[in-house]
Amino acid sequence: MSEIVRKNGNGRFSEAVVKDGIVYVSGITGDTPYADVKTQAKELLATMDRILAENGSDKEHILAAQVVLPDISTVGELNEVWDAWVVKGHEPCRICFEGRLVSPKYRVEICLIAAVK
Amino acid sequence: MSEIVRKNGNGRFSEAVVKDGIVYVSGITGDTPYADVKTQAKELLATMDRILAENGSDKEHILAAQVVLPDISTVGELNEVWDAWVVKGHEPCRICFEGRLVSPKYRVEICLIAAVK
Amino acid sequence: MSEIVRKNGNGRFSEAVVKDGIVYVSGITGDTPYADVKTQAKELLATMDRILAENGSDKEHILAAQVVLPDISTVGELNEVWDAWVVKGHEPCRICFEGRLVSPKYRVEICLIAAVK
Repeated sequence: MSEIVRKNGNGRFSEAVVKDGIVYVSGITGDTPYADVKTQAKELLATMDRILAENGSDKEHILAAQVVLPDISTVGELNEVWDAWVVKGHEPCRICFEGRLVSPKYRVEICLIAAVK
Repeated sequence: MSEIVRKNGNGRFSEAVVKDGIVYVSGITGDTPYADVKTQAKELLATMDRILAENGSDKEHILAAQVVLPDISTVGELNEVWDAWVVKGHEPCRICFEGRLVSPKYRVEICLIAAVK
Repeated sequence: MSEIVRKNGNGRFSEAVVKDGIVYVSGITGDTPYADVKTQAKELLATMDRILAENGSDKEHILAAQVVLPDISTVGELNEVWDAWVVKGHEPCRICFEGRLVSPKYRVEICLIAAVK
């Protein structure tokens, strides 16, 4: 079995961890504090594209995603951004629910499991 | 490594994704909106049986489950149905917590990771 | 592919499940009901050390962690204990959010995915 590769650890968590061809990605938020959910979703999915690329994967290779929204009534806005980003025919599994996040600055947080290409 | 197989994608998520002998299953809810948690739990676990079978697995091969309840005070009722469904000696790992779901129609949502038989 | 090994099943869930060199660990809580989050976090991470060891892993081999706090305002206290426990250079991926737990006795619950050494 392969070694574990960890990226961008900060003493608390790694941004991504790769083992045996599977990429685990930490909960990622947007860049702009207090921006609306659509803005933050676009920002965080751009970050996901970057993280997946840095770890030999891409959005066509996502296996499962978890979406946490501090206000579930914003799920329609999140879905607009998500649906435009996901590659048709390559949709991951998903679970989505309401949960307050570590900071009230963020409107959505998503973590992923993906396969290396 | 094996190809990724995706089932029943709807542009947002796939019902199940299989990679390297592991089946990821999306968050599944019951069939009858606003039915009580026991009814919905039975319905969704029947759906899980169908999804697992369609992907070469079954409830004896579940590795990990996540249970999300919009009202944690219903966990006793959920557990009654869950405990009757789970195969003794083949219990998966589990985490269970309260979180509002995408629609108030649903009283419980469960996602799984299972192994192909 | 390897067999599935399950540890300490109770008819509802197994404490840990191992398959193909990956250890899944159920949501673990502290030992002392109603103790503060730091006390319970220390207790549960000691339990994690024991579970990981029993399944051929350790805290340097954690791939991903999910932290659920019934009161997200206690995340700073949780992080103090977490940061002291995590091995620098071996940080797992992490997602952390607020969700009420099955019992109000517990201030934090954590589940993990780790690699066998």
